[in-house]
Amino acid sequence: MTSTLLHSLRRQRLPLAYRTARRYVATKGITTDPMTGELMPSTPDIQQNRLEITRNLNPGTPPPSQTLVFGRTFTDHMLTIPWDAVSGWGAPQIKPYGPLQMEPSATVLHYAQTVFEGMKAYRNENGRVTLFRPDMNMQRMNSSARRVALPTFNEDALLELIKQLIRIDKHWIPKEPGHSLYVRPTLIGTQNAIRVGPPTEAMLFVILSPVGPYYPSGFKPIALYGTTEFVRAAPGGTGAYKIGVNYAPGVLPQKTAEALGYSQNLWLHGPDHQLTEVGTMNMFVVFKTKDGAIELVTPPLDGMILPGVTRDSVLTLAREHLSGVKRLPDLPENLVVSERTVTMKEVKEAANEGRLVEMFGAGATNYFYRVAKANVMLGTAAVISPVKTIGYMGEDVHVPTGEDGMGPVSRPIWTELVGIQWGTISSDWSVLVAE
Amino acid sequence: MTSTLLHSLRRQRLPLAYRTARRYVATKGITTDPMTGELMPSTPDIQQNRLEITRNLNPGTPPPSQTLVFGRTFTDHMLTIPWDAVSGWGAPQIKPYGPLQMEPSATVLHYAQTVFEGMKAYRNENGRVTLFRPDMNMQRMNSSARRVALPTFNEDALLELIKQLIRIDKHWIPKEPGHSLYVRPTLIGTQNAIRVGPPTEAMLFVILSPVGPYYPSGFKPIALYGTTEFVRAAPGGTGAYKIGVNYAPGVLPQKTAEALGYSQNLWLHGPDHQLTEVGTMNMFVVFKTKDGAIELVTPPLDGMILPGVTRDSVLTLAREHLSGVKRLPDLPENLVVSERTVTMKEVKEAANEGRLVEMFGAGATNYFYRVAKANVMLGTAAVISPVKTIGYMGEDVHVPTGEDGMGPVSRPIWTELVGIQWGTISSDWSVLVAE
Repeated sequence: MTSTLLHSLRRQRLPLAYRTARRYVATKGITTDPMTGELMPSTPDIQQNRLEITRNLNPGTPPPSQTLVFGRTFTDHMLTIPWDAVSGWGAPQIKPYGPLQMEPSATVLHYAQTVFEGMKAYRNENGRVTLFRPDMNMQRMNSSARRVALPTFNEDALLELIKQLIRIDKHWIPKEPGHSLYVRPTLIGTQNAIRVGPPTEAMLFVILSPVGPYYPSGFKPIALYGTTEFVRAAPGGTGAYKIGVNYAPGVLPQKTAEALGYSQNLWLHGPDHQLTEVGTMNMFVVFKTKDGAIELVTPPLDGMILPGVTRDSVLTLAREHLSGVKRLPDLPENLVVSERTVTMKEVKEAANEGRLVEMFGAGATNYFYRVAKANVMLGTAAVISPVKTIGYMGEDVHVPTGEDGMGPVSRPIWTELVGIQWGTISSDWSVLVAE
Repeated sequence: MTSTLLHSLRRQRLPLAYRTARRYVATKGITTDPMTGELMPSTPDIQQNRLEITRNLNPGTPPPSQTLVFGRTFTDHMLTIPWDAVSGWGAPQIKPYGPLQMEPSATVLHYAQTVFEGMKAYRNENGRVTLFRPDMNMQRMNSSARRVALPTFNEDALLELIKQLIRIDKHWIPKEPGHSLYVRPTLIGTQNAIRVGPPTEAMLFVILSPVGPYYPSGFKPIALYGTTEFVRAAPGGTGAYKIGVNYAPGVLPQKTAEALGYSQNLWLHGPDHQLTEVGTMNMFVVFKTKDGAIELVTPPLDGMILPGVTRDSVLTLAREHLSGVKRLPDLPENLVVSERTVTMKEVKEAANEGRLVEMFGAGATNYFYRVAKANVMLGTAAVISPVKTIGYMGEDVHVPTGEDGMGPVSRPIWTELVGIQWGTISSDWSVLVAE
């Protein structure tokens, strides 16, 4: 065993490792830590063929679809996969949904070592079940895991196991248009030691929750609070990763926005108030340029922006429309697609000059919207959330919205996206789970 | 019930609340949310007299003190206190240390809703057990809870319950000098719903871990890696709070520092590379000024800096020395105490001109130090961690250290601080737990 490896194991404080690592390395070989370049033992990855299935003998009854509330109802089964630094990923288990036993010293409870993903499975009238671009979620989950020193995994193996879980509980997927099964993979550090460091034990679990339509009664454009007193992310921080760390600190700013009469935070960065994200969504602004073109703008992936699946899909559809790979009906021909910095000064100027065409959040979120002065409702937005107002430095900037809530760029893109998701438009992005 | 209250409850999505809030408010009155100013029902606070104690019938045996590893051994009992948005804080329980049952949808596992504290109980040869300034930890815990929308609590009541827990397990406190019982209060969001928002259920728990001496074989000055590619905190972020969120993202930078041959990150902020913190400690720099005075500098509490108990104690002792409240032997008379921004340019200049006197981390941390080229050991530092080197932009800045590792300012302050903690110097800061 090399001294570098010993050093690596010592740093991880693995008493067991001292005894077993020599034998282990002899049989498994040594690989290189992608982050530090240091040698480390190669441990088993997630293996589909080790899956153990324990059926739930007391299955529940899916509730009527119209009663569903986001993230409160879970299906009969869950997937769990243990990991430890010595033996790697253990046997995956599909078993009855139920509580986890966790030591009070478990790392995740103290130091926020948690990574998650959100994806949706759709079931059409013929019983065909699909996921939307799940490979993007698997890639991002690995990227997030690396950032908080949690173990990475074989993305294809995890995806196949998730499909198997969905197949077992597929009768929980509501058939009604717009309904779906929310899939929540989560990876947590579970070692029983309250020191800060790379975890020596972890667990990946996947739970499923049937959810209702995005907009039960049509689009509700939202009012944003241009937020400068709190930040969601900063250069050198973790904004580009889907990790728990980015969410708990957002609740107080969200409460503040609500108290001021807005639905979501518009996170503004830097002295020039660059627009970054909206609540927990990526953000797009559409301008009419001074030479008459239509510019679709979103901030670049500079380390502060979450690489959203919807964000990428919107950009890709817009670019394929322009390149002729696939024309989208009604999407302007004179479109320009930009990943660039956009500031509030530019947005205000465009609004004043009548060149602000529309603005929307892209991605999934829960948000509150006001249906009347004192009435706040919870919506489960997804894909596209049009914006009607930005409260900024004491005044409201008005953002145009169409009669249906959407605008001339978001509408055709939304139509294409949900067509793919609901299976009425065929696409490589739709991945079959079951027929 | 006012519409504002209804609105508040609706936003918290409490089905139960709809039914019980009217009755509740009638009996309990309405208070104002300190963060948003909005009306909300007043729920019961932590009540000492509701404590239920269940003795551990299979108590463990405290391990030999010399075998203790930080944060891996826990005592026989723990304290738990449940909270929910409708009934407030429930009956505190002291019960056998053991696993928590947690739904896989519990908020803390997904969105990092966790707040913690670290404090130490000391037992001297006469069996007298004390805590060091525990009121500071209680205050900070409430401040942290507010920042991530977790419930706040009566600080005196929690402290009394913690004392009771320590009394029950006081035979676990090692008597050897420098040893102590680490006390870890933790507050987590536990509601079973994967939406981002203020939790409707939470749990506060306290666990105890006997720990070894800070420096089993004397001070080991540490080498810091001046870190510009990652940030610990940012303006508008959460750096001033002791919350899980600030810790998981620090592991990868720490691994990076180690891979480069350093023990800890020196977190540098902004284009002028302001020194902020060291690993998980506050930071002090001592300069000889151009007019011959000795200046003790630490960054101000500007929102990015954790308000450390040790930080405050160092500043207070130095100021009381200067004002004559209490002279510390050997601490320079010509001392100036500054809470101000300090940049790497200033540190380098002082080093080049022979005016850099010393530098140290203040607070508790686990850190790795190199005893030889390939040997890395884990230290549990506390109180004062002297610095010997800063790796900065490709070169090493040398920081003077005394023969014992410490310098002319840190040594007398450390002597006073540990004297108070170990009970050889009497002080109001030492709070009696048991005699």
